[in-house]
Amino acid sequence: MNKKCVVVYSGGMDSFTLLHRCILGYGAQNILTLGFRYGQKHIREMGFARSVCNKLSIERREIDLLNVFNAASIGLSSSLTSENVNVPEGHYAALNMTLTVVPGRNTIMLAIAMAVAQEIGADSVYYRAHAGDHTIYPDCRSSYIRAMDMVFTEATESAVELNAPFQYWSKGEILVYGLRDLGLKPEDYANTYTCYNGNVTPCGKCGACTERAEAFAFSGAVDPTAVLPTV
Amino acid sequence: MNKKCVVVYSGGMDSFTLLHRCILGYGAQNILTLGFRYGQKHIREMGFARSVCNKLSIERREIDLLNVFNAASIGLSSSLTSENVNVPEGHYAALNMTLTVVPGRNTIMLAIAMAVAQEIGADSVYYRAHAGDHTIYPDCRSSYIRAMDMVFTEATESAVELNAPFQYWSKGEILVYGLRDLGLKPEDYANTYTCYNGNVTPCGKCGACTERAEAFAFSGAVDPTAVLPTV
Repeated sequence: MNKKCVVVYSGGMDSFTLLHRCILGYGAQNILTLGFRYGQKHIREMGFARSVCNKLSIERREIDLLNVFNAASIGLSSSLTSENVNVPEGHYAALNMTLTVVPGRNTIMLAIAMAVAQEIGADSVYYRAHAGDHTIYPDCRSSYIRAMDMVFTEATESAVELNAPFQYWSKGEILVYGLRDLGLKPEDYANTYTCYNGNVTPCGKCGACTERAEAFAFSGAVDPTAVLPTV
Repeated sequence: MNKKCVVVYSGGMDSFTLLHRCILGYGAQNILTLGFRYGQKHIREMGFARSVCNKLSIERREIDLLNVFNAASIGLSSSLTSENVNVPEGHYAALNMTLTVVPGRNTIMLAIAMAVAQEIGADSVYYRAHAGDHTIYPDCRSSYIRAMDMVFTEATESAVELNAPFQYWSKGEILVYGLRDLGLKPEDYANTYTCYNGNVTPCGKCGACTERAEAFAFSGAVDPTAVLPTV
């Protein structure tokens, strides 16, 4: 029996690259991807993820956490989910980017991914956390990933592990890895979506757009999405 | 400002005792309890928890995880949630009790509790795991609790901690603690519900009923619930 894995796949460029790494290691038929709705303004990303999975015949389950977040009153103060808070502009390192944190979101998603992996007999969950997120998002740091992996080990009696192969890399390095080592082409990244504001045409100003532009600048490739945000 | 805490309160006798410990430490007005629906046959426990919170003027949020579990296909093989699997009879230590495990359930619930605690500015989540569950439920063991507490520390930057004060105690010792140290009376435990089959009259045969009977036998008190299961 082939090994199976679960990939938390939002539809952004990092998890798109991660998915392709997993295709190389596991084969598309042994991958299950998970997507989560939690009230994010950039729900448009979900359609990109679904379309990629359809094209590659990869199993996908989409989980609606919106009722849970509403019942628990989670995410009310985050700009990613609340209509009352604007998505801040500029670079992630800036303090106002903490407005894009949804408390507990990643831990809830990873806990569900762990359960799904256990149910289908997968040995790993793949998570796209990367070094560029460390300043603002505690649950993307290596210390968090180590702790969560220990939870996986204990809760599943070592059946499932948490893998975050990009945890020490910048977004630019992930893109370079995709282009150079996974054989992806710049135009393949037209199948990814980034903007936190969820516009059809990316705003080019939010933290996510800013970092995407920086990543492409770092790689030397040109972003195939219609409008290029200015760095 | 007083300290606040979140209590995962199912309506069973252990979390009932835990709630009263927290009332002593925090005051009823500083407690928020969480209950979870995940398709459990013993959903009757939820009504008991709600009623206790109403009586004591304790805030409660009830979270419906059923759609999440369905969309993710979690819990299909557990006797607690699946109509196709009968709840096994007898003592928890027996191997067939693994049928009562719902993979990932506790990690998902604790992750949500962590997020809620962070949102309301609570410093602690209280979890009723006890030593009697260690054999069958990996996510009730101290090694798991330590790992999950580390996740709380990392994800919330030390704002929220996970407390499981009963982790080294048997169910009987928890009951004795409630009766002797918290001033609860045996008849107060009529406000708790235990049976995994969810019958109005507890079945007296499932693992949960068996352990409840053993706990009362250990304490020397008489279980006030209508029908006593035979030990």
